[in-house]
Amino acid sequence: MRATVIHAPHDIRSEEVPDPTLVKPTDAIVRVSAACVCGSDLWPYRGVTPTTKPRRIGHEFVGIVEQVGDEVTAVKPGDFVIAPFYWCDMTCINCRHGVSTSCLHGGWWGAPDRNGDFVDGAQGEIVRVPLADGTLVATPGMPAPDLIPSLLTLADVMGTGHHAAVSAGVGAGSTVVVVGDGAVGLCAVLAAKRLGASRIVAMSRHADRQAIAREFGATDIVEERGAEGIKQIKELFDGVGPDCVLECVGTAESMDQALRSARPGGMVGYVGVPNGGAELPIQTMFGTNVGANGGVAPVRNYIEELLPEVLDGTLNPGRVFDLELPLSEAAEAYAAMDERRATKVLLRP
Amino acid sequence: MRATVIHAPHDIRSEEVPDPTLVKPTDAIVRVSAACVCGSDLWPYRGVTPTTKPRRIGHEFVGIVEQVGDEVTAVKPGDFVIAPFYWCDMTCINCRHGVSTSCLHGGWWGAPDRNGDFVDGAQGEIVRVPLADGTLVATPGMPAPDLIPSLLTLADVMGTGHHAAVSAGVGAGSTVVVVGDGAVGLCAVLAAKRLGASRIVAMSRHADRQAIAREFGATDIVEERGAEGIKQIKELFDGVGPDCVLECVGTAESMDQALRSARPGGMVGYVGVPNGGAELPIQTMFGTNVGANGGVAPVRNYIEELLPEVLDGTLNPGRVFDLELPLSEAAEAYAAMDERRATKVLLRP
Repeated sequence: MRATVIHAPHDIRSEEVPDPTLVKPTDAIVRVSAACVCGSDLWPYRGVTPTTKPRRIGHEFVGIVEQVGDEVTAVKPGDFVIAPFYWCDMTCINCRHGVSTSCLHGGWWGAPDRNGDFVDGAQGEIVRVPLADGTLVATPGMPAPDLIPSLLTLADVMGTGHHAAVSAGVGAGSTVVVVGDGAVGLCAVLAAKRLGASRIVAMSRHADRQAIAREFGATDIVEERGAEGIKQIKELFDGVGPDCVLECVGTAESMDQALRSARPGGMVGYVGVPNGGAELPIQTMFGTNVGANGGVAPVRNYIEELLPEVLDGTLNPGRVFDLELPLSEAAEAYAAMDERRATKVLLRP
Repeated sequence: MRATVIHAPHDIRSEEVPDPTLVKPTDAIVRVSAACVCGSDLWPYRGVTPTTKPRRIGHEFVGIVEQVGDEVTAVKPGDFVIAPFYWCDMTCINCRHGVSTSCLHGGWWGAPDRNGDFVDGAQGEIVRVPLADGTLVATPGMPAPDLIPSLLTLADVMGTGHHAAVSAGVGAGSTVVVVGDGAVGLCAVLAAKRLGASRIVAMSRHADRQAIAREFGATDIVEERGAEGIKQIKELFDGVGPDCVLECVGTAESMDQALRSARPGGMVGYVGVPNGGAELPIQTMFGTNVGANGGVAPVRNYIEELLPEVLDGTLNPGRVFDLELPLSEAAEAYAAMDERRATKVLLRP
């Protein structure tokens, strides 16, 4: 089969690799209908995180089950399934606490499992799915093709934006600022709106992203960053700032902006993978009572909640995809996102 | 009048100072019935924070109103009043958001206000109280003398322990660990119990403090610290840790212990004044989804909620006082707390 391999920064290749097969009785084999490139895939692409040897990449996909192991009962061949950006059992105590990213028995796509057996990356034609009963969520029947982009966002960006909002405590009447206008930031706007926020500011400099943010529920746009951006935010919210700030970037600058934008007693919900090296400034946070909550989003725990609204068309997070390419052109997909020619690229095997 | 002055580390003096008088029409003059020494007063006493010149000290008191300015309407001469460890108007947007420590017009005891007018410290016989309508809470009638220690804790330690619990999201059925067995830590145990925690572990090595912790609702005691302490905590809670950790110390070590003790997805409520210089480790927090929330406790916002239960005897946070001295012996009060001969010392003018 064909799969995407990163060899070095800016060196993404579409290669022939062996087809996966069932390894454990809890596995499923899934033929990928759609995958995509994540903002976090750009960290190794840009060399911000190292690539020491060629490795499979990609962690978001939806597809159709082809085979299941003897112990798999929740999905069956022919089912259309959504996989989160990691695999997990959904039965351990951490999964039951709602934090399936800390599954005691789970792991990551494109890497060996605890026994050393390789688990496929998601930017490929076929994926071996460990712990299939926990990892996969089947849709009721085969979804219409136009729903596939939105279903695919439940693998990561929509669930991650939702996690930012949940972590910040967004509820009815909350005032919200979203830092970051990538796919996750845009989904965070949508999640905040869905949870009842009364006012949502999207911080964005790009007209096309501003337009989607407004479509998703943003009431205001702030283009400035840094001190001037914080000043404008404070002015929009009684001079003190909003209740909740959703940090969807992961740099030291974006987190600083988030922490300094929130009102005293406010909460920053953060989901951007931290890549700035800066720690959280406890003295500042202590003085203002601004909290920080979030992390690697347990999107598997959110799929059942969000799925019905995607299926009935209430939620259309698939709007974040603005480019679609064949899997064989994965290199161009990365380049387009790296150069900001695309917000998020969908790949079709 | 007599008041307490810190001249240098380990140099606390009881001195004659001018009696305060009304400066602004929003002031009240309060004769102190009881004051006390705070764990945070030990930072300058120990030289951890600098003392560059002699200054008045103390920020917790209850007393009886002697005079009020023309614009004061909420309290009157003869009222018994509780003051929080800062002063505030309770009408600005931050106070209305529940964060009166960030009052737009408030300030701190023992320091100049925004106009440069000196505001008394609390370890004295008489205190000029700015913004008296916001700052002070009068009890209904004159309280029985044996209630005074518990009423005094509403000025700081009980409200601060409560803030740790609220910030961590303690509710019915929560599992809780309290780091720190000082007066705030013990009050945090009491607050967690009051909020419905199902299991509360007090981390303490001192038999007398363990006894109060158990009386306040602790179900378990862990004496170990560091890696061994964290191991024992994890074992008590399904191998993963509790929902909530209340950090009531403020050192880098105590915060590290708190963050590493919480279960994935758990929350650290922190109220210890940060004095370790260490920032919060965002990579670790991101990976485990452990949040941090809290800060300088807005105890004024909690007095009305907690006061009825103190007045009817349901809550007895005054148990944290284990030594009572005359105000003139403030130096001995500091020494007793510094040397851990006392948990918290009450001072009577």
